[in-house]
Amino acid sequence: MPRYALLIEYDGAPFLGWQRQKDGLSVQQVLEEAAAPLNGGVEPVVGAAGRTDAGVHAEGQVAQVDLAADLPVDRVREALNTRTRPHPVSVLSVARPPAEWSARFSAVHRAYRYRILNRRARPGLEMGRVWHVPQRLDAAAMHEAAQGLLGHHDFSAFRAAACQAKDALRTLDRLDVSRVGEEVVVRVEARSFLHHQVRNMVGTLAMVGRGQRPVSWPRQVLELGDRRRAGQTAPAEGLCFVSVRYDPPLDWPA
Amino acid sequence: MPRYALLIEYDGAPFLGWQRQKDGLSVQQVLEEAAAPLNGGVEPVVGAAGRTDAGVHAEGQVAQVDLAADLPVDRVREALNTRTRPHPVSVLSVARPPAEWSARFSAVHRAYRYRILNRRARPGLEMGRVWHVPQRLDAAAMHEAAQGLLGHHDFSAFRAAACQAKDALRTLDRLDVSRVGEEVVVRVEARSFLHHQVRNMVGTLAMVGRGQRPVSWPRQVLELGDRRRAGQTAPAEGLCFVSVRYDPPLDWPA
Repeated sequence: MPRYALLIEYDGAPFLGWQRQKDGLSVQQVLEEAAAPLNGGVEPVVGAAGRTDAGVHAEGQVAQVDLAADLPVDRVREALNTRTRPHPVSVLSVARPPAEWSARFSAVHRAYRYRILNRRARPGLEMGRVWHVPQRLDAAAMHEAAQGLLGHHDFSAFRAAACQAKDALRTLDRLDVSRVGEEVVVRVEARSFLHHQVRNMVGTLAMVGRGQRPVSWPRQVLELGDRRRAGQTAPAEGLCFVSVRYDPPLDWPA
Repeated sequence: MPRYALLIEYDGAPFLGWQRQKDGLSVQQVLEEAAAPLNGGVEPVVGAAGRTDAGVHAEGQVAQVDLAADLPVDRVREALNTRTRPHPVSVLSVARPPAEWSARFSAVHRAYRYRILNRRARPGLEMGRVWHVPQRLDAAAMHEAAQGLLGHHDFSAFRAAACQAKDALRTLDRLDVSRVGEEVVVRVEARSFLHHQVRNMVGTLAMVGRGQRPVSWPRQVLELGDRRRAGQTAPAEGLCFVSVRYDPPLDWPA
């Protein structure tokens, strides 16, 4: 059966997350139901590069699906987008990946963005897209603290209790914090992440930003390796899965 | 009774528009209910600079409210924001306007932005925030055509049948069309607008952008003064009320 790679955008607000659940709607279910007519009426499995949590958004999620038929990629995209309505899920592009390619296991680089709305007034237009922190954050101090987490480490201190990864060794390539108007934006990149790793790092950096902990503290938390020493898990709604890279790169039609 | 000016942001998607309606929720109702505890339990009237349609967003709407008590502006903002939850309406700032000031009638300048998502795939993350036009639009042609509408004219051709204004004479100060990545963004400014004027102008310019009409056509439509000759009314969800200016300017606390 031919394999297709899907480049996907979604608003995470109405979903229980990427992964299929018995008790409510997931992005995976919307796509699997949309793909059934392209697969002889049978719902295929759609697997993703990143199994985002409930409320987490994506502007560049990548997924894979095997379909019974050999179809033009534009037709697959159009057919899926007709049938994902009215849900806020859109297939931006469809490609034919190389043999043995896996959306999840072939990924060599993942990028996330975390948005903090840092003003007194709560979110109106951006409700559900940002974490609201009303106290003034020192973005420069957060950025400095973040640099202490870069590189190859055991990230147990920033790992969810439910994390199923075999080990907590990861290589963090980028953790930039900057102020953009009323927002503090965190940009994170690595080959792969532990469950809740980005949100736990952001929650920890926010304590530095509020002046509750020194700039040196997140690095100490990392070295202690104890989740209970870190900051809160930042809320899901501020997080967006921005992009995934493969080697060789996928050739997405424009 | 002291008058307060409110600077407001909202996501228009869940509302029937600004104006109070019997058959569903409006932004005005959310704010009037939120303000009642500041007014001895009685809902005050909250009047806006622009009575936006259902689905239209605002990042800089201005409204007025008279309250029984003389309160610090920060307290008014915080109290309103506590009580507008969980609706996507936020009071960004509260000011004390000069005597005789009216949010609607004292406004000397209004700015709107209209966002068109111009790509094959339907909106995912930006669903409800943009008008989706899958055919490639020529933004430069739209901009050139738009310049023919600038200045003081009778805008009857771009006026809704339900428009209640006494006459259709308006002065259009700005109508810029530009491409920003996958979007075509229209920026419009005038002292005031007719009902549906922005959306009718955008729908007309889109016909030029698609190549269905020449660049000279929107000016001809204007001169004919007949609504039936213009393009479709562009959908509400692409429109955002950006700002209102007063003379003298209001002094918004940071």
